[in-house]
Amino acid sequence: MIRPLPLALALLVAAPAAAQQIPGPYGPTVTLAQAERAIDAARAEAARRGFTMSFAVVDPAGELISFEKMDGTQNGSTEVALAKARSSARFRRPTKAWSDQVAAGRTAVLSLPGMIAIEGGLPMLANGRVMGALGVSGGTSEEDGQVAAVGLAALR
Amino acid sequence: MIRPLPLALALLVAAPAAAQQIPGPYGPTVTLAQAERAIDAARAEAARRGFTMSFAVVDPAGELISFEKMDGTQNGSTEVALAKARSSARFRRPTKAWSDQVAAGRTAVLSLPGMIAIEGGLPMLANGRVMGALGVSGGTSEEDGQVAAVGLAALR
Amino acid sequence: MIRPLPLALALLVAAPAAAQQIPGPYGPTVTLAQAERAIDAARAEAARRGFTMSFAVVDPAGELISFEKMDGTQNGSTEVALAKARSSARFRRPTKAWSDQVAAGRTAVLSLPGMIAIEGGLPMLANGRVMGALGVSGGTSEEDGQVAAVGLAALR
Amino acid sequence: MIRPLPLALALLVAAPAAAQQIPGPYGPTVTLAQAERAIDAARAEAARRGFTMSFAVVDPAGELISFEKMDGTQNGSTEVALAKARSSARFRRPTKAWSDQVAAGRTAVLSLPGMIAIEGGLPMLANGRVMGALGVSGGTSEEDGQVAAVGLAALR
Repeated sequence: MIRPLPLALALLVAAPAAAQQIPGPYGPTVTLAQAERAIDAARAEAARRGFTMSFAVVDPAGELISFEKMDGTQNGSTEVALAKARSSARFRRPTKAWSDQVAAGRTAVLSLPGMIAIEGGLPMLANGRVMGALGVSGGTSEEDGQVAAVGLAALR
Repeated sequence: MIRPLPLALALLVAAPAAAQQIPGPYGPTVTLAQAERAIDAARAEAARRGFTMSFAVVDPAGELISFEKMDGTQNGSTEVALAKARSSARFRRPTKAWSDQVAAGRTAVLSLPGMIAIEGGLPMLANGRVMGALGVSGGTSEEDGQVAAVGLAALR
Repeated sequence: MIRPLPLALALLVAAPAAAQQIPGPYGPTVTLAQAERAIDAARAEAARRGFTMSFAVVDPAGELISFEKMDGTQNGSTEVALAKARSSARFRRPTKAWSDQVAAGRTAVLSLPGMIAIEGGLPMLANGRVMGALGVSGGTSEEDGQVAAVGLAALR
Repeated sequence: MIRPLPLALALLVAAPAAAQQIPGPYGPTVTLAQAERAIDAARAEAARRGFTMSFAVVDPAGELISFEKMDGTQNGSTEVALAKARSSARFRRPTKAWSDQVAAGRTAVLSLPGMIAIEGGLPMLANGRVMGALGVSGGTSEEDGQVAAVGLAALR
């Protein structure tokens, strides 16, 4: 059973339009214990569904706090998971907000330094403030996004 | 009340077609005092409108002269403000000239190294010559462009 | 007249041995207003002594908050000032702690990524906690260190 | 009580001369489970001794498998822990082998790309073959080396 997402997160995940709104400010930095809890939940979900994936948690500056690569994961996913986490933290929005913009024709955002327009990166929120971000890579972008959401739900 | 833009700047901001023309040559480099004046004006405008933004001023080679990040600005805007300023100085045109080209279907310009196709970077002109550039990031691309224009107007 | 340094800072600057001790934890991030105050004081001191210098203030992760390059400063000092600030913030000690180690024969520290072993970078402290760092470059390393100390004294 | 080191590791740690010998070939890659076990043991030892440290485990190519940064660790230790692990894996020897060489006057090794000459990186061995490496940073180089050795001992 997957626990329901927090409301703010659900909005971020479900509504591309929300990403157009002003993103929340930074709050206290995610702790290692929180990072591990999110990665453990995401990895368990990936294992349950038979995926091989990489997971990265970063602080608001994009500094690495915790990382895990499941055995057998494609090596390219290391940099992708890191980039998704960093982009989510540094731009305070899900990476899907950018892929939605590209899909809607705003191709020019691809020139933004530090941005990755592939679903699977989600800001980690506490009381509406961004305390870090989780990046997942290894499946389709939709699968990456679903697994990342399960990881964040573990912080409820 | 926002002061009227200088004529040359107004053309650059208002008319995408102008960017297709041959950009002016380089002139004397912007001084630190001028850079600070532009950033101070841009920051005051950002504060007035409730934005959190980063500001960068560079010389004609894209070398950094002055930078400020307002408290609470998303970290990703640091690199974006720098990239907008550098792109404007090194290609001697507003970054909006590039986003207009991408919007018009000329996607291939995204492969240009050192170019960012997001509004918010403006060349700083003196007597028609490019003496540096100002880059702004933190709001929507339109807001970034408006705040950058206020910054440049302070150099009149 | 130069104001006396805060005690903790004086220890950091004066006593290489202090750098061997466990550095303090990170505290709240330096604000833009504090960064500007430190840079203004350092720049005034540099001007008074006839130096041309660059100044950078970063947060605990080494993220840029404010930067100024005085007119006529060698371009190489841009990266050096940034590197000194980042090294001081990320390793929570003055860059002189590293140059002292090299001078004492511990050459191997030169292989540390993100470290610069040249005086002129100082952590910015509040209640014993590192809230960022100031890097200065453009003079001799001793001059850079003296000017940086004047910048930090402005935060008293 | 600290468990005795495996014989091969003890040789690597205790005898700088051993590093001059031809290092062993690569074997099967360390698994995520093994990486986590080593990091958990190292982190417990660091906590026991009151250190704040970062830990990285990489495969024989230096590709990241697992990473953890303890709360409060200096940010500079992220890159240092990664560099120690990569250097150990790619050169198949403890990073102390290089610092010993520098200390003995062979300064030129500092020009080796991908090498870090600071204790705290150890190859992870299975049946005499290098399956990856563990890098630790945050204390003195000696402390980093001791904590890394405890991490490796957990793989016995």
